[in-house]
Amino acid sequence: MSAVSAPSACAAVMSLSPFEIAPWSQGHLARVEQALSQWVGDGAPAGLGDAMRYAVLDGGKRLRPLLVLAAYEAACSGASAPAVLDDAALRAACAVELIHAYSLVHDDMPCMDNDVLRRGKPTVHVQFGEAQALLAGDALQAFAFELLTPDGSAMPPATQATLCRLLARAAGSAGMAGGQAIDLASVGVALTEDQLRQMHRLKTGALLQGSVLMGAVCGPAAPAAYQALSDYGAAMGLAFQVVDDILDVVADSATLGKTAGKDAAADKPTYVSLLGLERAQAYAQELLHEAHAALARSGLPDTRALAALADMVVRRSY
Amino acid sequence: MSAVSAPSACAAVMSLSPFEIAPWSQGHLARVEQALSQWVGDGAPAGLGDAMRYAVLDGGKRLRPLLVLAAYEAACSGASAPAVLDDAALRAACAVELIHAYSLVHDDMPCMDNDVLRRGKPTVHVQFGEAQALLAGDALQAFAFELLTPDGSAMPPATQATLCRLLARAAGSAGMAGGQAIDLASVGVALTEDQLRQMHRLKTGALLQGSVLMGAVCGPAAPAAYQALSDYGAAMGLAFQVVDDILDVVADSATLGKTAGKDAAADKPTYVSLLGLERAQAYAQELLHEAHAALARSGLPDTRALAALADMVVRRSY
Repeated sequence: MSAVSAPSACAAVMSLSPFEIAPWSQGHLARVEQALSQWVGDGAPAGLGDAMRYAVLDGGKRLRPLLVLAAYEAACSGASAPAVLDDAALRAACAVELIHAYSLVHDDMPCMDNDVLRRGKPTVHVQFGEAQALLAGDALQAFAFELLTPDGSAMPPATQATLCRLLARAAGSAGMAGGQAIDLASVGVALTEDQLRQMHRLKTGALLQGSVLMGAVCGPAAPAAYQALSDYGAAMGLAFQVVDDILDVVADSATLGKTAGKDAAADKPTYVSLLGLERAQAYAQELLHEAHAALARSGLPDTRALAALADMVVRRSY
Repeated sequence: MSAVSAPSACAAVMSLSPFEIAPWSQGHLARVEQALSQWVGDGAPAGLGDAMRYAVLDGGKRLRPLLVLAAYEAACSGASAPAVLDDAALRAACAVELIHAYSLVHDDMPCMDNDVLRRGKPTVHVQFGEAQALLAGDALQAFAFELLTPDGSAMPPATQATLCRLLARAAGSAGMAGGQAIDLASVGVALTEDQLRQMHRLKTGALLQGSVLMGAVCGPAAPAAYQALSDYGAAMGLAFQVVDDILDVVADSATLGKTAGKDAAADKPTYVSLLGLERAQAYAQELLHEAHAALARSGLPDTRALAALADMVVRRSY
């Protein structure tokens, strides 16, 4: 598994002035897509590799990889970073997307949400069968950790270990999987706002915040900056879910690329069902403000990409 | 997550003379059970934690953890190892068992083998429902990597990273999950012996061999010894599967603790269907001989536990 050659992300950000998110995203998305396309399914038996690639490639907003790369650039803003750290950040960006992709594959299965449409395409179990979907999800999770621990690489072992730790925690029972379990137990149950927040902090927030932290540890961020980026990640991650709840009500399936209105249909508690639409929208704005405030106190000279991604999370229409 | 205090395994082995596998296993199993019981499900939401603990605790031969600890002791035989390496080996022992346990949970699900009995108990999806079983398996995989990357531990980052690398490879699409995918595609298909061997090398062999390698890297094994232990792991891992195929034919469900005869019922290719019972039994003996020969050329002064475990693998009745 060789590194994908790419221009230095740390060097690239300093030349962007004034900052525009669209070209920034396009450039980084191209790197991520190229890397995922090169790496995912490589060496897997044919059927499994096909299902893994179908689950990951050619779709998705890639928000988590962009957060990794933006946090990495923020962490080394004002300084130049060696190419090996660029490689680490790119691997981290791909790894978080693999975890996200596997969670969607398993979530969509009949025993969970039983969804047939994802990113405008048939879901993996519809396309490949349930058994292959189950295995593809399992293999994608393992591959995320494999990507973070390249053999014979110049990537420092301490960075490899820290990235694995952050990813395992974000994905596991005190993170994404734990949040999904709470979600599962909450159907038809009246949650308090604190309980709803806790569910979403785990289910969606943990991996979004984890993406920010994984990017940050690839760069030379000081502890105070790391804490501020962590706060940014928490606020932005929760905002993402509040907006998701809003979009489930106000958008249609064609725009979302997945089934709209399914939370209400499934009698799941959401920010809209708890707060009403207007207060949910106001809460999303408040969280966006918190995210920006955290970036301001990070002391990092260039957090423009992170700021723009938080804006995008709250203002998106799908 | 604190380390489980335990006597030094490296120190312990040197006092065992003549070697007896039963007390050796009992002592080490007690450490593994205590650690698993302390760690698994800790911090997980209640329902998920219960399913994770049900899947892991109070059952299973714990062959993989014993292989980790035996390989670790072999790798440091004749030398004393610091307690931090003992902790690393114990974590590795638990991590491989978590991967094994998660694979059983997912394998037993209706979309895979649809099995209702495992280790003499209802399978996880029968007990907790399919959705919780799916999530518990996912969370166990993530937790395996979390166990290998303790925060603020004295465990060297390079050891953490190497253990994650070995485990990810053994579990993923070029290991266990890949083998399961080949298995899935092989129902009703006539495989050559090479194809059957490749399937089993991935499906069962990769994690068994990985267990040996993970134990070895926790100790100070020289490269030549590491290669010999790898060869041991490959032969023993394949022997395990050959014997599994034999037991599926000759044992009953009560003895196995799982449904007997299901390979033939599912029209799956096995060593017995390919070679016949007698030649399969002879092949298991041949692989056992290979495993012992690899230990002999390792140059390690004490490989008694690994030798005894290989014997146990081939001579077991369940």
